[in-house]
Amino acid sequence: MKIAVDGMGGDNAPAVVVEGVADALKRYSGIEVLLVGHEKKLAPFIKKNHLQNNPNLKVVHAEQVVEMNDSSIAAIRAKKNSSITVAATLVSKGEADAVVSAGHTGAAVAATKVKMRMLPGVARPAIAIIMPAQQGPFIMLDAGANVDCKPIHLAQFAVMGEAFARLAFSTLRPRIGLISVGEEDVKGNDLTKETFKILSDMPINFIGNVEGNAIFDKAADVVLCDGFIGNVLLKSTESMARAAMFWMKEAFTKNPLRQAGAILLKNAFRELKSIGDSEEYGGARLLGVNGICIIGHGSSSAKAIRNAIRVAEESVKFGINKHIIESIAEAGIAVNKPE
Amino acid sequence: MKIAVDGMGGDNAPAVVVEGVADALKRYSGIEVLLVGHEKKLAPFIKKNHLQNNPNLKVVHAEQVVEMNDSSIAAIRAKKNSSITVAATLVSKGEADAVVSAGHTGAAVAATKVKMRMLPGVARPAIAIIMPAQQGPFIMLDAGANVDCKPIHLAQFAVMGEAFARLAFSTLRPRIGLISVGEEDVKGNDLTKETFKILSDMPINFIGNVEGNAIFDKAADVVLCDGFIGNVLLKSTESMARAAMFWMKEAFTKNPLRQAGAILLKNAFRELKSIGDSEEYGGARLLGVNGICIIGHGSSSAKAIRNAIRVAEESVKFGINKHIIESIAEAGIAVNKPE
Repeated sequence: MKIAVDGMGGDNAPAVVVEGVADALKRYSGIEVLLVGHEKKLAPFIKKNHLQNNPNLKVVHAEQVVEMNDSSIAAIRAKKNSSITVAATLVSKGEADAVVSAGHTGAAVAATKVKMRMLPGVARPAIAIIMPAQQGPFIMLDAGANVDCKPIHLAQFAVMGEAFARLAFSTLRPRIGLISVGEEDVKGNDLTKETFKILSDMPINFIGNVEGNAIFDKAADVVLCDGFIGNVLLKSTESMARAAMFWMKEAFTKNPLRQAGAILLKNAFRELKSIGDSEEYGGARLLGVNGICIIGHGSSSAKAIRNAIRVAEESVKFGINKHIIESIAEAGIAVNKPE
Repeated sequence: MKIAVDGMGGDNAPAVVVEGVADALKRYSGIEVLLVGHEKKLAPFIKKNHLQNNPNLKVVHAEQVVEMNDSSIAAIRAKKNSSITVAATLVSKGEADAVVSAGHTGAAVAATKVKMRMLPGVARPAIAIIMPAQQGPFIMLDAGANVDCKPIHLAQFAVMGEAFARLAFSTLRPRIGLISVGEEDVKGNDLTKETFKILSDMPINFIGNVEGNAIFDKAADVVLCDGFIGNVLLKSTESMARAAMFWMKEAFTKNPLRQAGAILLKNAFRELKSIGDSEEYGGARLLGVNGICIIGHGSSSAKAIRNAIRVAEESVKFGINKHIIESIAEAGIAVNKPE
């Protein structure tokens, strides 16, 4: 299995990317990494991680890099030889099975959409992430690929999320919920009210609206929202978790008695921290494109990159795309031409 | 000062409402409560709380109640004698200084909008809440009054939020941020990109977009969003906090050593819990209507009701509305007619 990794993508690229690749090649057998990026810039890190003679690593040169402040579409048009575009092209040509990038999310979405194309009948790709909840993990999509969505897009996300949940949670009829401001079908904004109607007629296990105060109880296996809300929700949970850790630290170090208590709970804190550890989740799946694309956090560490490569490998094995194509057709929500 | 309290509003009304009123009358001097609701249904609870002969309590009869599954506008039109409509009318007639309700939020917004009218130049009311962040509290609006907003509405929310932050945080130039998916002005959805332009030209301290992962660090004193996102964000933090408590409990009771540690940290846990205690915050302010309206959580306890009455009293003293009127005019974003 060949995985194309965007060597230049991410706040700490290429250093942590190459380190993550080295770790992945050590841990996961049967994979080959095509490391895409500027050869000269990658070289010192390849040497540092002793990868010069690794038969499972191949460097693919890409002259350009998409910067974080480039606009997505402009970046793709103006930088035809960027690492993300070259990586996506490898998949489209069948020279790689998946692409992994921790770079500019919008550029990764645009590049895969243009180069790999959409799955037949799917209008827009969506970023699907697995998040922790009280009763076990759930899937949220779209976590940021589309800031403005139409009802048909959310309906297609429902099908893609269902296919993913079936594979990820080994459940036949995943519960699909729509994020809204009230449980009743009359509650919501224009987008969710219209989407509610479409979902109600689809051959999925649609459980209705899910309010914010139920999301992390695991009210549903899959929760749907547009990419603006998904992105804000995902990132704000990070911010809130950080605030919670800050308050805990303050409260637990206030006096010697409490400090003693905190020492006894050291392992418990480690366990708690791992629950929300986005590095372990290893990247989000971009569903809807004709191929496998895993998108990492811009601030990805080497561990996050390594796990993203693992997720890419799993996704290739999953073969989720044929399920999505079938289900989209079956639900009668295929579109003729991706917008 | 006279405060009209919706006696029938909330999941546990009228029991907890009357209990909260009794507590408020005990604690806060100089206020008179006009308890609005069905006289016969209120009577046993008034007796239970020994309020029959309290000179500072007056019951105002209202025949009807807006139920949680009523639609907002229909409720107001069909139930002209509901407790919330009667309470709002008391304010519009000058017979009360403020209204407090823990009932149907949409109905409270609609009733106050219709009866109390909007402030001159303001198109839509917004729910402003104070939320905890690492570096101190911040204000978020709109937390749920308007599920679909236009740029001009968010611009007006900015002015209202600024006026509120000046009073609440005693700061002259509150930092105003716009919730979006990236810091750059090109990042966002159609609504935020257009809003960004308007805010940039206004005489406020607009610091630009605020991403989800900065919200709870207190990136801004005031964060703006439409009521759909605000509601989802507010409620999902509740859900997340609950999940966090669940995980903590699990981790801290796993073995006797940890249980001992947890006992030493008992007071710390109490402190932590109080940080996010929405009961203490005592209700959200509905800004933009011509009068004071405090909206409580549907699940408000007696303590939350009591604190909502305290917030109402403070708000009357604040005299925020004249600041809003002036600032809206000054910013050049007044509308001729509320939509």
